[in-house]
Amino acid sequence: MTAFPYDLKAMRRSLHRFPEPAFLEYRTASVVAARLVELGFDVRVGPEIMAMENVQALPSAEAVLAAQEAARLAGADENWMARMPGGQTAVCGEMRRGDGPVLALRFDMDALPVLESESESHLPAAERFSSERTGFMHACGHDGHTAIGLAVAQKLSHPTAAWTGTLRLIFQPAEEGGRGAQPIVSAGLLDDVDTFLALHLGCQLPSGRVALMADGFFWSEKWSVRFSGRAAHAAMMPEEGRNALLAAATAALGVHALPRDGQADTRVNVGVLSAGRARNVIADEALLELELRAATQDALSRLVDAARRVLQGAALMQGAEVEIACQGKSVSATSDVAVCERLERAARAVGLEDIVPNWPIGGGDDATFMMRRVQEKGGKAGYCLMGADLTAPHHAGNFDFDEDALEHAVRLMTSFAEQA
Amino acid sequence: MTAFPYDLKAMRRSLHRFPEPAFLEYRTASVVAARLVELGFDVRVGPEIMAMENVQALPSAEAVLAAQEAARLAGADENWMARMPGGQTAVCGEMRRGDGPVLALRFDMDALPVLESESESHLPAAERFSSERTGFMHACGHDGHTAIGLAVAQKLSHPTAAWTGTLRLIFQPAEEGGRGAQPIVSAGLLDDVDTFLALHLGCQLPSGRVALMADGFFWSEKWSVRFSGRAAHAAMMPEEGRNALLAAATAALGVHALPRDGQADTRVNVGVLSAGRARNVIADEALLELELRAATQDALSRLVDAARRVLQGAALMQGAEVEIACQGKSVSATSDVAVCERLERAARAVGLEDIVPNWPIGGGDDATFMMRRVQEKGGKAGYCLMGADLTAPHHAGNFDFDEDALEHAVRLMTSFAEQA
Amino acid sequence: MTAFPYDLKAMRRSLHRFPEPAFLEYRTASVVAARLVELGFDVRVGPEIMAMENVQALPSAEAVLAAQEAARLAGADENWMARMPGGQTAVCGEMRRGDGPVLALRFDMDALPVLESESESHLPAAERFSSERTGFMHACGHDGHTAIGLAVAQKLSHPTAAWTGTLRLIFQPAEEGGRGAQPIVSAGLLDDVDTFLALHLGCQLPSGRVALMADGFFWSEKWSVRFSGRAAHAAMMPEEGRNALLAAATAALGVHALPRDGQADTRVNVGVLSAGRARNVIADEALLELELRAATQDALSRLVDAARRVLQGAALMQGAEVEIACQGKSVSATSDVAVCERLERAARAVGLEDIVPNWPIGGGDDATFMMRRVQEKGGKAGYCLMGADLTAPHHAGNFDFDEDALEHAVRLMTSFAEQA
Amino acid sequence: MTAFPYDLKAMRRSLHRFPEPAFLEYRTASVVAARLVELGFDVRVGPEIMAMENVQALPSAEAVLAAQEAARLAGADENWMARMPGGQTAVCGEMRRGDGPVLALRFDMDALPVLESESESHLPAAERFSSERTGFMHACGHDGHTAIGLAVAQKLSHPTAAWTGTLRLIFQPAEEGGRGAQPIVSAGLLDDVDTFLALHLGCQLPSGRVALMADGFFWSEKWSVRFSGRAAHAAMMPEEGRNALLAAATAALGVHALPRDGQADTRVNVGVLSAGRARNVIADEALLELELRAATQDALSRLVDAARRVLQGAALMQGAEVEIACQGKSVSATSDVAVCERLERAARAVGLEDIVPNWPIGGGDDATFMMRRVQEKGGKAGYCLMGADLTAPHHAGNFDFDEDALEHAVRLMTSFAEQA
Repeated sequence: MTAFPYDLKAMRRSLHRFPEPAFLEYRTASVVAARLVELGFDVRVGPEIMAMENVQALPSAEAVLAAQEAARLAGADENWMARMPGGQTAVCGEMRRGDGPVLALRFDMDALPVLESESESHLPAAERFSSERTGFMHACGHDGHTAIGLAVAQKLSHPTAAWTGTLRLIFQPAEEGGRGAQPIVSAGLLDDVDTFLALHLGCQLPSGRVALMADGFFWSEKWSVRFSGRAAHAAMMPEEGRNALLAAATAALGVHALPRDGQADTRVNVGVLSAGRARNVIADEALLELELRAATQDALSRLVDAARRVLQGAALMQGAEVEIACQGKSVSATSDVAVCERLERAARAVGLEDIVPNWPIGGGDDATFMMRRVQEKGGKAGYCLMGADLTAPHHAGNFDFDEDALEHAVRLMTSFAEQA
Repeated sequence: MTAFPYDLKAMRRSLHRFPEPAFLEYRTASVVAARLVELGFDVRVGPEIMAMENVQALPSAEAVLAAQEAARLAGADENWMARMPGGQTAVCGEMRRGDGPVLALRFDMDALPVLESESESHLPAAERFSSERTGFMHACGHDGHTAIGLAVAQKLSHPTAAWTGTLRLIFQPAEEGGRGAQPIVSAGLLDDVDTFLALHLGCQLPSGRVALMADGFFWSEKWSVRFSGRAAHAAMMPEEGRNALLAAATAALGVHALPRDGQADTRVNVGVLSAGRARNVIADEALLELELRAATQDALSRLVDAARRVLQGAALMQGAEVEIACQGKSVSATSDVAVCERLERAARAVGLEDIVPNWPIGGGDDATFMMRRVQEKGGKAGYCLMGADLTAPHHAGNFDFDEDALEHAVRLMTSFAEQA
Repeated sequence: MTAFPYDLKAMRRSLHRFPEPAFLEYRTASVVAARLVELGFDVRVGPEIMAMENVQALPSAEAVLAAQEAARLAGADENWMARMPGGQTAVCGEMRRGDGPVLALRFDMDALPVLESESESHLPAAERFSSERTGFMHACGHDGHTAIGLAVAQKLSHPTAAWTGTLRLIFQPAEEGGRGAQPIVSAGLLDDVDTFLALHLGCQLPSGRVALMADGFFWSEKWSVRFSGRAAHAAMMPEEGRNALLAAATAALGVHALPRDGQADTRVNVGVLSAGRARNVIADEALLELELRAATQDALSRLVDAARRVLQGAALMQGAEVEIACQGKSVSATSDVAVCERLERAARAVGLEDIVPNWPIGGGDDATFMMRRVQEKGGKAGYCLMGADLTAPHHAGNFDFDEDALEHAVRLMTSFAEQA
Repeated sequence: MTAFPYDLKAMRRSLHRFPEPAFLEYRTASVVAARLVELGFDVRVGPEIMAMENVQALPSAEAVLAAQEAARLAGADENWMARMPGGQTAVCGEMRRGDGPVLALRFDMDALPVLESESESHLPAAERFSSERTGFMHACGHDGHTAIGLAVAQKLSHPTAAWTGTLRLIFQPAEEGGRGAQPIVSAGLLDDVDTFLALHLGCQLPSGRVALMADGFFWSEKWSVRFSGRAAHAAMMPEEGRNALLAAATAALGVHALPRDGQADTRVNVGVLSAGRARNVIADEALLELELRAATQDALSRLVDAARRVLQGAALMQGAEVEIACQGKSVSATSDVAVCERLERAARAVGLEDIVPNWPIGGGDDATFMMRRVQEKGGKAGYCLMGADLTAPHHAGNFDFDEDALEHAVRLMTSFAEQA
């Protein structure tokens, strides 16, 4: 195999500076698509590989326009964007080398609405590659994932790379809400896949260590909840109000106080609460964004029932109405043993000898929808972790990871592709 | 006295369509200033009559620019706006007729961040004069107050109007929030006033009835509160978070649960709660906008102490930090008997015979700062109410008032000016 | 008039040492009955003057037995107690002096479940007349009221006392929960009364001052609320529980956070919350004792509706059931002008010149049921306050009052009886 | 081996009828001690085998007297009770058969403050062996454990039983609050033990199945929390109160809303909340009984820190004081492989072939203190589960278990003792 000229860290940092949230990854996707073409891949994007019928909570037309405009200013290619209307920002690069199995690798591209730390102890700040889009941040390492995908593309497209069959690189939008994988599955892009692999950096796994399988994927639901009350003058006739803000506050406490489950690990979070418009008016409207997660489908079902009661009861307490809209779901999935074994061989082949069989992902990833589809159709699927020391937990404003992990991940995935 | 050509209802409706919140009343103030000049008043605006040193929570430069731009599109005069920089939107029209006492009348111009009802049962919707600025609304009748002020200006500027001395009409911004009166007081505009009168429509007083004195003005403080916690991935390491959203929710409940006071009527309201940025991140920041009111200064002081404890305790519960910023205060004031008596004569002189000596305002009005200054300097001050049947409580999205009250108020105030 | 040998303070202190809660005033009532007989009154007790059909939440048979046993040990007369079965502890002393109007005076006898302060700064502790029944206390001054009643009885029973007609002294149980007056009214004891007077000590009125009329009586309801959930092992299967404790906690916060009323003063209090049986079991039952008060019947009705929603919503949040039982109600009443005028003459006749026309009682008193009955039947009723400096608010564990007020009150009421 | 005349179910039902809570197991312990003597064991009780120096929250002298009196009425032997002063109700039966290792078996005897179901679908109700002590119940199967212990004692004391060395049967009080094992450990009763075994019925393991090792023991702390506020008249001067009830309610919600831990399973429960004394008094005192559990010592430490903040913050919110007293702790422990292997042989030897290597206990058991001491001193320790279908979760009022499991457990433990 030839040398590796691609500057992984530079690419990661370039992506880090331009974080784009779910279904608005216009600059990122354009960069990816352009590079894949350059490397000789057949590239499909947007509606060619996404079926959006059942996607919940797409960004508004205004938000799409604004994101495209911002991407344009950041140098995104107009032609690629034109092929990704309405938030359909998935990119797929495909290359064939004769007959042989189809290998699909998944990389996610979206960022989070997190305010990045400006502390000099935060490397992106110190080294001047912080987010240029205030209020958004690559706080989960998807900048790294995308850079890894492009590096893998470069290495595997090199004539000397030792693989045959079909290589399919999927750059997915909207992993963080759990909404980006399903439209790609619906479009059939996973139906003929023989082997599927996704990889995540970090997750508390130390630098240099490989986990052959991530486990502990949660089943989850993501809800948007609206409480509708009645406004009133807070001093003259507060008794005429129906306080949506207090309904939401009570509900937020109630959701966090939902009982732990003796049979399965669970998580709950009300991540956003927005209520009221003026200090001297009883708030007539409140919105919650929350998520419920559980290690089993049964426990999620219990949690969903209990959370629904909490929301309805909190509304009733204030004489308010409540609407609950499910904005996304995620499922659990299990890696196939065959993929784990191939990964172990791949790791040892490139000198990654610090290997653990499994490690909890501690959250979710909608790559599980892809894994399940591959498995349903008779293929094998896996999800591995590449260790990377972190400066702070995932999703924190001072999150950062050991950039050496980028090259480890590229070596691992490339080697995986080259294993018989 | 001459006929009354001014179309009060049309003016009120025109103002209703363009609601502007505190310190951003550019279109309204421009219209007022232009009209006063037309009627022959000496007009002073902005810094000429406002001393802004101690004003809290002024709108940002961006907000001012945006408001000016919107006002411009709605026909506001560029020259007037240029004389009202940085949210200094007060307007004063003055007219002298020989020696004699100075009479000051106060009218407030600002609107509220309330979403106006679109129901056909809401007159502004049915008659097509609803707010054209979504999310803002004249939900407290200041559109009526401003229209009344302009009608009073017209009538009293007529050569046949029976008054002497100095007439000073003060059109005040930012009554809601209690921040607009103080800079006008600080600028000295009340220092030489012999008689001061303000009027409010509605307040549950039935149409046609006059209350010679509003009482029950609350002492109040308006706070903005920021909770700062620590973000964390809600599934991987929720235990690393410091949940600012839960701190704010707990605080909101705690503030509303503050004890009633056995010695004085009180009010509390958390009108706005805004927390968190993403569903799967522990919220690291939350903002509350709240107000505390009490019928006596002592009771307000008790409420302030107790609310401070609630906020600090709620922060401590989550290991979060809290900052409390007082954004405005209001004081109580009492009308002078002499003003009430003059009002009674004025009312009877124009056939308003349905008179009550006093009526609770049920809220506050920072005209009290003006009243106190006038009284401190030896003048007499009053605050009266003009009955107006309401469709909904003040500050509700379907608030509206009986427009016949407009003419009653104009007759009353004009007659008041003409009483010896 | 003769000298006044009765030792008021000693009697008050004796009563203070033996506080008895609602409907369990066996020792107190026995002492009262015996003394009235001694003074020549016709004495009726228990079922002779109480109709208990509609009384809510009477003490249990066990509680009555225990109270009687404790009273017996404290020297209560067995014969009197035998005439007061089932908590019927009212006592009425009557004396006739020829024809003439019927004058009824009311005194209340019950104590509170409050733990008395042991501080040396608390007079009963320092002077060794503290409660001997741990957990109960005369924390509202009814020990004083009863002592005053007995002193008034002594003075008016003296041959030289200047009154004619019928004098009826009513010693009432269970004022604190608002349940003792109604059965006496139901029994008809107020039906022929021409003039009725009740008196309360303290209420923030300074020592020596007389308020001719207490106002601000609240309308109220007193509720007992039971939440029923489902127990479960708190570690093994917490998800199987239905947490009644959390329902009650949420409800308590929700009740205290009920909006103030712009039209009437209100009060809310959850005074007792008792939930759960073991630390490692999800609580399956919780009880709340709460009260709702409002200055008007309308506002109480609003409060009742809103509180009901709060309780039902809090139950729903936890999947629990809720039962609400109203345990007592109180009503407002207004003193007749004629009674106030007679009181003023009475006060001045005995040198009590520090007089105010009215003063807020700041709470309630079910003497209002008696007042209303008297007024319905054509009589006149009044409720006055005798000032007494306090060491702490009513119902606090270190509550105490200036004992000089006792004699003031005796003089006032005696003089009232002697006014034509 | 001889026949088995002992009536296991009858003994279990007899014990079920007389449930006694922690450190008050006087009737149970007396029955056990008498039976062990009858079978030829050397019996030590109370202070002979308990060192109480560091025991927290012992029952009061009054509670001990009351429990002894109740036990006496239920037939407990006066002499045994005399040897168990102050709640020291542990019983140890020992038998030697020549030299050889010391085998200790642990059985727990205490019941819970749970109200037993009266439903006919609840077997103890239908078959008339329900709790005769209202408000207490064997809702965790310790009645079964004690009956098993006595049956094991009978079988192993038979001359034909195939074991040598020393057999020590430990009947432990107060397992439920995690306070009974430590004083026995402190007294040295485990110091010379070569092999230790404890067994629990149920825990969601199906009837007939053996789990060689219970895992998932939680680290835990049990707290009693007292909030001290200030009483005040709820209507006259509520603002003077410091509401301990609201502090406790807020704290209860806050504790239940503590974040899940991404690194370890946790549990929280506020099982008891008791606050306030009268409906019309601001509550000046509130008590919480709560427990915190975590799968690791680190996670427990995080939970303890966070809960402390919650309690302090909730107190601060109300201007109240808070005292936190730790009433008990439990630790995790792991069974030794040697014990599991011996158990497997023992199970198969008596036809119990449905075996799983491990099963989550789902809670805690302070037998872990004994296990740790044995292991520290060089011995081997184990904790196994005997499957028993349940009618309801542990600690529920309708908890019951398949009584066939009793004999399975006796066979298993006897066989364990007889394995070389």
